[in-house]
Formats: sequence, structure tokens, C-alpha cells
Amino acid sequence: MGKQVRKGKFITIEGIDGAGKTTQVEKLCEYIKNKGKRVIRAREPGGTALGEQLRKVLLDPDSNPVSTAEALIYAASRAQILEKLVIPAIKEGFFVVCDRFVDSSLAYQGFARGLGFNRILQLNKWVLNGYWPDITFVLDVDPEIALKRLTRGKDRLERESLEFHIKVREGFLKLKDEFPERIRIIDASKSKDEIFKDIVMELERSGIFN
Amino acid sequence: MGKQVRKGKFITIEGIDGAGKTTQVEKLCEYIKNKGKRVIRAREPGGTALGEQLRKVLLDPDSNPVSTAEALIYAASRAQILEKLVIPAIKEGFFVVCDRFVDSSLAYQGFARGLGFNRILQLNKWVLNGYWPDITFVLDVDPEIALKRLTRGKDRLERESLEFHIKVREGFLKLKDEFPERIRIIDASKSKDEIFKDIVMELERSGIFN
Repeated sequence: MGKQVRKGKFITIEGIDGAGKTTQVEKLCEYIKNKGKRVIRAREPGGTALGEQLRKVLLDPDSNPVSTAEALIYAASRAQILEKLVIPAIKEGFFVVCDRFVDSSLAYQGFARGLGFNRILQLNKWVLNGYWPDITFVLDVDPEIALKRLTRGKDRLERESLEFHIKVREGFLKLKDEFPERIRIIDASKSKDEIFKDIVMELERSGIFN
Repeated sequence: MGKQVRKGKFITIEGIDGAGKTTQVEKLCEYIKNKGKRVIRAREPGGTALGEQLRKVLLDPDSNPVSTAEALIYAASRAQILEKLVIPAIKEGFFVVCDRFVDSSLAYQGFARGLGFNRILQLNKWVLNGYWPDITFVLDVDPEIALKRLTRGKDRLERESLEFHIKVREGFLKLKDEFPERIRIIDASKSKDEIFKDIVMELERSGIFN
């Protein structure tokens, strides 16, 4: 969506915890590599030294950030990964596949928490400065199903109520209306292989490999 | 300048290192107290637990933030002090006197470093959301004079070149054109007592105590 000439491409995978993002990011990187393209995997938040430090600050019980400060810290982490990793890789012709990016802020902080969609969008426009993903897959699943999948550590999802995750899911679905060309909603209640088949179909159809 | 009804008032003191901000903030707090007003002193960056943590991140040689990330981290610290300290105090009728605030970002990062005034202004508008200071005193002094004053630790000023501080000073002076009603330029080449007399004169003239 940016106006830059992009040699590489920028793909993001979004969705609530337990939607299956990590698995699909792995499969997708493998698929792109097998097409003879160079690919870099990234994740948010974190992924840079600064990002990890900021993550620690957010997790520190003493820091207690107000919602605007929290949004700005996530934005700082995003700015760093964008400028240090994503933009240089795209300029070099790499495919970048990122596990969570701007739409997580829009869904979690914009829709599900207090600040509101427009305020979070405004901040993230400032950060991205045109570097929006080329295509974004939202893995859409009922939060109750996602919760059952999370054998790896239910605490993350349980910390927030089921109600909260229902709001986040609705947020992701509303994003499709805001960015109809960029966002693809994928039914993630299916099996891993079926989900991946749907992603590949959408990806090939998008013309991103042309 | 905000559109809120403010019981208290918000005063900021700005200028390059060695301009004499700390002394004037102290004198000003004393003066306001002697007028029978309740006053709170603040400083930026820092002043909150989150602010101190973010300051450590910025000083960590490993963190190496890009200029947008740096601006966002300063903005996060500002958002925290604004919401946790400044706004509640103003609502309670306090006078808040803050050592550096938004204009430092505008002068240092907007004018003297790479991002440009408009981009930094846009970010800070997002953060302040209307809570601009009622009045701002810019202590204006030749950086060479300021450097000579800094017996307390020349390293801070010397780390950046004299040229850089000349640019910052110019930035502060340009801010007067952007915000002619809010900003008062004070000749800070004078003695401490003379500087303070000028500040008091401007403050009384502003009608802030009415």
C-alpha cells in the first residue's frame, strides 16, 4: 500500500492468541523459499534489541503505563523493527513475513481497549509513514476454540477475559472494512493444512509473486 | 492553550543545557507558593517510574533507537507524566512548573536532528491532545556562555557539538513564531536575579494569577 517502489514484499499474519499464527508463519516462509524467493521472518513486539528492552518495560509491574504511553511504546518497537529490518529487507528484494504488526495495535488498543480506532490509526500512520504491509492475513477463529488450542500456556489468554478476546476478534473483522484491499480474512477454525491452503490460494491470487 | 476549563495552570521552562532552567524553576515555584497557590514541580524526561525506565533504555548503548523510535519513547514518557501528574494536578487547581516539556522535543528532535519540525509536532499533538502549557519561558543564551556555566558536568554539552546547540537555540527561537501567544523568550545571558525578574514580569503580565 505504500507509494515506494518495492523490490520485496511485506506480508503480515494477524489474529488472537491461539489462532495458529506461528504455524502459518513457518509454513508460509517455507512456501516462499521453495518458490526461490529470499524470505525473512519477523515478529512483534520484540525482534530488535530495543524492542526486547521495551517489552521488559511493559511487563514490569512497576511501570504501569497509561494507555497512551503503552500505545507509544508499542509504536516505538514497531518503528525500530520497521526501519532496522523490514524496510532494508524489502529494499533488498526480500519477502518479509511478520507475526503481528500494525493491525494488532488497531484491534487490541484501538477496538478492544480505551483509546479508540481513530486515535490508534493516527499514531500508526505516523509510524508507518507509508510502509503498510502489502497483504495481511487475519486468522479468524472463535476465542473459545482458540483457548482450547493453547496448550502451550493458557495464562496469556486467561489473563484477559473471554469477553475481551471477543472484542479483539470483532476489531480484526472491522479492519477488513477499513482496508478491504490489504486484508484477507482466513477461516482459522479449520485444520492447519486447510488454513494454509486458503492462505496460499489468496496469496497466489493477489499477484504478489508476479 | 487547551480548550479544557483549567482550575490550575501549566508552566514550562525551556532552553539549552546551561541556560539556568533548574535555578529558575526553583525560584518560580517559591514565588508561586508565596502567592498562596499550591505548586508542583516536575521535570522531563523522567518524573515517573515508567519515565525513569524509558530513560535507562535510551541511555543503554545496546538499544540504539532509530530517530522515530527515540521520538516515540520521549513521547511515551511525556504521555505518562501528563496523565499521571500534570492533568490531575491542574484539575485539582495546582500550578505545575515543568523543567522541559514538549518544546524540547520540537527544538532538539524537530529542528536540530533529522525528523523535521512538522513530523515531531504531529506526534506531540497526538500526545498532548490539547494539554499544551499555558505559558512557556525559553531561557535564551549563547551556547558558548551556557557551556562556561556548566561546572556541574560539561560532558553532557560536550557530547554534542557546539554547532548542534546553536541549531537547538535557533529551534527554540523559531518556536516563538509558531506559538507567539504561549512562548516568552527570556534573555538568559543576564544574572540569575535579573532573569527571574524578567520571568516574573512576564508572568504577572500574562494574567495567569487572575
